[in-house]
Amino acid sequence: MSRCHNFSAGPAVLPLSVIEQLQQALPDFQGTGLGLMELSHRSAAFDAVHRSAEERLRRVLSIPDDYRVLFLQGGASLQFHMIPLNLLRADESADFVVTGTWAKKAHAEAVRIRQAQAIWDAAETNYDRLPASVTPSPGATYLHYCSNNTIFGTQFPDALDVDVPLVCDMSSDICSRPVDVSRHAVVFAGAQKNLGPSGVTAVILSPWAMQRAPGGLPPMLDYQLQVDKRGLFNTPNTFGIYALERVLAWVEESGGLDAIAAQNEAKAQALYGEIDRTPFWTGHAERTVRSQMNVAFRSPSAQLDAAFVAEADAAGLKGLKGHRSVGGLRASIYNACGVDSVGALVAFMQDFSARNG
Amino acid sequence: MSRCHNFSAGPAVLPLSVIEQLQQALPDFQGTGLGLMELSHRSAAFDAVHRSAEERLRRVLSIPDDYRVLFLQGGASLQFHMIPLNLLRADESADFVVTGTWAKKAHAEAVRIRQAQAIWDAAETNYDRLPASVTPSPGATYLHYCSNNTIFGTQFPDALDVDVPLVCDMSSDICSRPVDVSRHAVVFAGAQKNLGPSGVTAVILSPWAMQRAPGGLPPMLDYQLQVDKRGLFNTPNTFGIYALERVLAWVEESGGLDAIAAQNEAKAQALYGEIDRTPFWTGHAERTVRSQMNVAFRSPSAQLDAAFVAEADAAGLKGLKGHRSVGGLRASIYNACGVDSVGALVAFMQDFSARNG
Repeated sequence: MSRCHNFSAGPAVLPLSVIEQLQQALPDFQGTGLGLMELSHRSAAFDAVHRSAEERLRRVLSIPDDYRVLFLQGGASLQFHMIPLNLLRADESADFVVTGTWAKKAHAEAVRIRQAQAIWDAAETNYDRLPASVTPSPGATYLHYCSNNTIFGTQFPDALDVDVPLVCDMSSDICSRPVDVSRHAVVFAGAQKNLGPSGVTAVILSPWAMQRAPGGLPPMLDYQLQVDKRGLFNTPNTFGIYALERVLAWVEESGGLDAIAAQNEAKAQALYGEIDRTPFWTGHAERTVRSQMNVAFRSPSAQLDAAFVAEADAAGLKGLKGHRSVGGLRASIYNACGVDSVGALVAFMQDFSARNG
Repeated sequence: MSRCHNFSAGPAVLPLSVIEQLQQALPDFQGTGLGLMELSHRSAAFDAVHRSAEERLRRVLSIPDDYRVLFLQGGASLQFHMIPLNLLRADESADFVVTGTWAKKAHAEAVRIRQAQAIWDAAETNYDRLPASVTPSPGATYLHYCSNNTIFGTQFPDALDVDVPLVCDMSSDICSRPVDVSRHAVVFAGAQKNLGPSGVTAVILSPWAMQRAPGGLPPMLDYQLQVDKRGLFNTPNTFGIYALERVLAWVEESGGLDAIAAQNEAKAQALYGEIDRTPFWTGHAERTVRSQMNVAFRSPSAQLDAAFVAEADAAGLKGLKGHRSVGGLRASIYNACGVDSVGALVAFMQDFSARNG
């Protein structure tokens, strides 16, 4: 078996040590004689996994004790519906900072069922920038933003500094660096970038969010009921939750978010360093808001971009094609993307630019 | 590694050969150099998996060509909401045959957003029986039933014979026997009994259902949009879909549903044979409607039931405690529960009844 360098935007590379633990657990989970996928979600063995996943996420992200944590299905896209459904009353309105595709989709979902304003939108420059600051609409119930934009490669340096409850889609940078969860009303993230396989969504709810959630909604969409049932109203994605628990264990064993963030910063610096070294490469995002997770860039032409993707693929560097809404190239360098992978990519870029520059 | 006999109601036992294929695919999927969980859901490799899963389900269940097949998240419980949301207009009403907990929950969900009648309900006898026939309400738009009742151990012998569109929750007996999908408007099933791990739901939609679905609903809840996007509006549970594809391959390699059904019938006969052999055991369901998937029974006392569960567990026979709404004992003997497991259980029951009778 030889594993390639995987720069996929998601589902994304996971730590090999986690994969090996999953392999071992599949036929026989911890000596129970029952396989990982074959455990009842009501069993003591799965309950321990589920509790450990929550405890680890609480420790890793320093989630305040009075916040609730759920592992749901449906991805961030279902949260785009559940958040306004639970948090906005009929006559209320939410603000959206539209920094890319996902914030735009979230805004569209809120508009479908409630009132919502896009108070900032960088469509005109194809989402290459972020606002330095934003001013919420008067009376906005909450403000929704996306901390990292997977497609366009921009990332906010920190939680937005506003005086309304903050809802944050952290799908593509959760657990990549320390973040102040206590400044947020809701944090949510699909697992398939930094937390595990696809099919699990982490949802973190503040006391304010729980107080607003009216209850009495369709159970699968109801934060009150899901919290009452600890996310076990029906059968959750048990395999995915165990995988997430193992990824969080790996984060803790790696030294937690300070150590992870330092490594992510080093990886990003190496890659942006090569992009800035020669005019052969052009980064998509403005320099001050470059993402440490998704690096969107291009060569001098679409032809060379295509040649780069094909040659890189043949050399074992996978998933480097840019998203169609940006074009060019993209390297996703999430937590589990090793320094060795980034090194291999930088070396390949140097060779490619020398040959084609 | 020694695997126990697993009688869990779900997540349930899976074929060991499938588990071994998943182990192999986790670090490196088919020599791509990328792990199973780490493939983009837009990649050619995953697209082939996804298409194969659909094709296999179509072949195994003889799904008509003009039906649509989706693999969604959220379990049957989310379908309880999506079905009336998509199929019932504001002034219309659906019928529910309440044969157990899941049909009751589905009815409650329909009532929450539309009109719905429970036209039959066996709560008085704790769901030990099924109707021989049902008469739909005048003007009912569709009739919802559950083909197999996991908790109470009852199973309809065939699709209901009524003249309104049929919606069937087949979560706990899909692919256990041939079934006439063409007589149904919608068939859906959580994967975690006969199809794979939890976190995937198979949804089969007739042309009638697609014609009724209005579109314009929240995308994650919208059959029109999910069909347009082939279930790829957002990232699906890629690991779960591959596992399901492998389980369906195993069904086909085992000879398809005729062979599977014959084995299921033999397993059920062996188990009910022991229950009927001695008055020590009492079956919960009426004899004519006994489930071939879930066998609910009891010993002469709650104390002996508890002793049975504990002793069986110690002997490597797992998951035999009855659901709290029935009490007693329950053996779930889905497709992947081997003849050897049922044989071991029957032998244990004979020994236990001899010692305690």
